[in-house]
Amino acid sequence: MIPSDLERQLAFLKEIDRLKSVVRLSPLIDRSRRENSAEHSWHLAMYALVLARHAAGAVDVLRVVKMLLIHDIVEIDAGDVPFHVPETHAGQSERERLAAERLFGLLPDAQAAEFRELWFEFEAAESDDAKFAKALDRFQPMLHNAATDGGTWVECGVTLEQVEARCRPPIERGSPVLWEAAARMAEDHYRRPAQPD
Amino acid sequence: MIPSDLERQLAFLKEIDRLKSVVRLSPLIDRSRRENSAEHSWHLAMYALVLARHAAGAVDVLRVVKMLLIHDIVEIDAGDVPFHVPETHAGQSERERLAAERLFGLLPDAQAAEFRELWFEFEAAESDDAKFAKALDRFQPMLHNAATDGGTWVECGVTLEQVEARCRPPIERGSPVLWEAAARMAEDHYRRPAQPD
Repeated sequence: MIPSDLERQLAFLKEIDRLKSVVRLSPLIDRSRRENSAEHSWHLAMYALVLARHAAGAVDVLRVVKMLLIHDIVEIDAGDVPFHVPETHAGQSERERLAAERLFGLLPDAQAAEFRELWFEFEAAESDDAKFAKALDRFQPMLHNAATDGGTWVECGVTLEQVEARCRPPIERGSPVLWEAAARMAEDHYRRPAQPD
Repeated sequence: MIPSDLERQLAFLKEIDRLKSVVRLSPLIDRSRRENSAEHSWHLAMYALVLARHAAGAVDVLRVVKMLLIHDIVEIDAGDVPFHVPETHAGQSERERLAAERLFGLLPDAQAAEFRELWFEFEAAESDDAKFAKALDRFQPMLHNAATDGGTWVECGVTLEQVEARCRPPIERGSPVLWEAAARMAEDHYRRPAQPD
């Protein structure tokens, strides 16, 4: 029997429950544990709602929110590769492309195509919507690191110069105002004497 | 010094990280642990994107998604009260109202007012957008229960009649199609002989 559209939609919604078990390197702000990719996606969607006025271009908030809600779903198959551990990045974009085909392919065809295209648009980071979404995806972990005495900056032994080299381009392209705030947070952390735990 | 709009926005985004530590009674589908309210909110926003065409009324998807992203933020102060444990519900709406004032009040005034109004609209469940959002909030845990040999239905000793009495009105008002699917899932569970663990 061919599954109905609703059956395919519910199968997809059931499958993506697994994103709650993909654990990122970033800590929660209270440092009780690491963040998972589902709650990270919720947080980023909130960032988009709250910070949309700081986008560099004219953005469509619904499209930005959609991109952020779906952007990490590929990690169900491909896993999360930490931003500040470049040696884990090899082959990841191909793994994610295959994951996008399989996971969004669970949906009815028109919806599958819409989500795949949104995901590719996010990855390409060329449209105003995607540039802003990418900027938020890089900005939020900086705020967590700044709020946790260094977070993954300390854990991965990252220098201030590396933070700037890696984070400035994607954040500044999507929101110069947010880059200014992020740069200040990073400088404050790196200029402060180490905190006892 | 009066904080800037951006400072207030970042303080809010930092504060709501705590929603990731509010644990619900509902299990993840793989039963590895219980769901938290932040990842639940992400999942519901995905339900809204995927299932919008099944809404009873004409819905504005961005407004529905916004409601679902913010609907549980009050639990940071008020805690989660399990749907199938009615004795925990006393006083909860007043606690949540106070929480909405404090938490959304961290934002710049216009944004605080917008989020407070959206939250009240969701709670009232009278507009088409809010009715659909509420329906999804009741539908998703039914899918989790059906997928986990009963989940909170078993844990809370709920009968099929109680499931129907509690879940049918809010789900059917927002989406008759989803209620039909939910009723089928519940009936399948209650008619099946108990599964060994």
